[in-house]
Amino acid sequence: MDDSNPRRPVPPTTVRRLSTYYRVLGTVQSDGQTSVSSETLASLTGFTAAQVRRDLAYFGSFGKRGVGYAVSSLRQRLAAILGIDRGWRIGLVGVGNLGRALMAYPGFNNQGFDVVAAFDSDADVIGSRVNGQYVRPVDALADAVRGEHIDMVIVTVPAGAAQKVVDQAVAAGVRAILNFAPTQLRVPSHVQLSNVDLAVEVEYLSYSLAE
Amino acid sequence: MDDSNPRRPVPPTTVRRLSTYYRVLGTVQSDGQTSVSSETLASLTGFTAAQVRRDLAYFGSFGKRGVGYAVSSLRQRLAAILGIDRGWRIGLVGVGNLGRALMAYPGFNNQGFDVVAAFDSDADVIGSRVNGQYVRPVDALADAVRGEHIDMVIVTVPAGAAQKVVDQAVAAGVRAILNFAPTQLRVPSHVQLSNVDLAVEVEYLSYSLAE
Repeated sequence: MDDSNPRRPVPPTTVRRLSTYYRVLGTVQSDGQTSVSSETLASLTGFTAAQVRRDLAYFGSFGKRGVGYAVSSLRQRLAAILGIDRGWRIGLVGVGNLGRALMAYPGFNNQGFDVVAAFDSDADVIGSRVNGQYVRPVDALADAVRGEHIDMVIVTVPAGAAQKVVDQAVAAGVRAILNFAPTQLRVPSHVQLSNVDLAVEVEYLSYSLAE
Repeated sequence: MDDSNPRRPVPPTTVRRLSTYYRVLGTVQSDGQTSVSSETLASLTGFTAAQVRRDLAYFGSFGKRGVGYAVSSLRQRLAAILGIDRGWRIGLVGVGNLGRALMAYPGFNNQGFDVVAAFDSDADVIGSRVNGQYVRPVDALADAVRGEHIDMVIVTVPAGAAQKVVDQAVAAGVRAILNFAPTQLRVPSHVQLSNVDLAVEVEYLSYSLAE
């Protein structure tokens, strides 16, 4: 089996681990290291060395025995695979505590994810300045998506308001939705939808404690 | 192979999917359905029906052909497996936007995750009331963990402050840490650590768009 075949479908869990490798390689790089073994990547991420090698093999990246992976080129490679070597324009809907936290999140801006527009339905919030953005009414979302080339919409509204926001964004041509509202959303098949369920990790911990 | 053997190690990704099944079963139950097929669970979660059956088989839950899973008992079963049928006492450190969002997150309180104490290092925040809690100084964390039987600590402080917080919590006897700070933390092997990297899902979307 040729592990370097790029057409092999990549499991979503592998893609998510690439994000972690990318992050850890940044730390390794700023420590001045130029090469890194799969064992070191394993100990820094908590995955196994075999898992690291298997994940990177999907994209034809093989460490050299006794030398490891070249840190800088592997990191650039991962950035290209993850699409974070270009800028993405993001609209955020729902400027509550979670929305504000995400707008200020250093992990977004550092990696080409630029929140260029923020929307809320609360008259007290509309027009206020949050993280450099004037908050606009939700009704302005569709026009902004069309006129300002917004690629993704982050949804941080209450569960009951989420589907309507998503329908407006999709009708206006958004290609990707990141949903934090605790509800199952419907999108057409050409739109990418990811759900972040903040309770999953707490439940994973409680599973581990209860075991 | 006996799929019902509960001693088979359960992959973390399976445990995380259980959380999603649990949530979706709640919706199905409130819709008044008493049984559900793996195909329906698949379409509601985005996983495949084979994946659903494989995941539930880890815990000896088998749907009946033509009948499916009994909604109520499967949901109770998952709650017990995930340890969310009991109360967990949580301390939260870092009452910024993300910390406030988590303290108010309905998905926590509804499932037995009770934030019983909140801590911050900012003199302007200490003593203020957030979501029913008076915010305490971070120095009070260790005493609270010991005296108030805190099971888990949620870390929403900046990256540079996280390890110190975790060291204090661990020394005081906390058994599980949920870390939102964008940094790799070290904990002893008897402590469960989960990291939530809010950028991972955005990067998954950008991978999908860039592909």
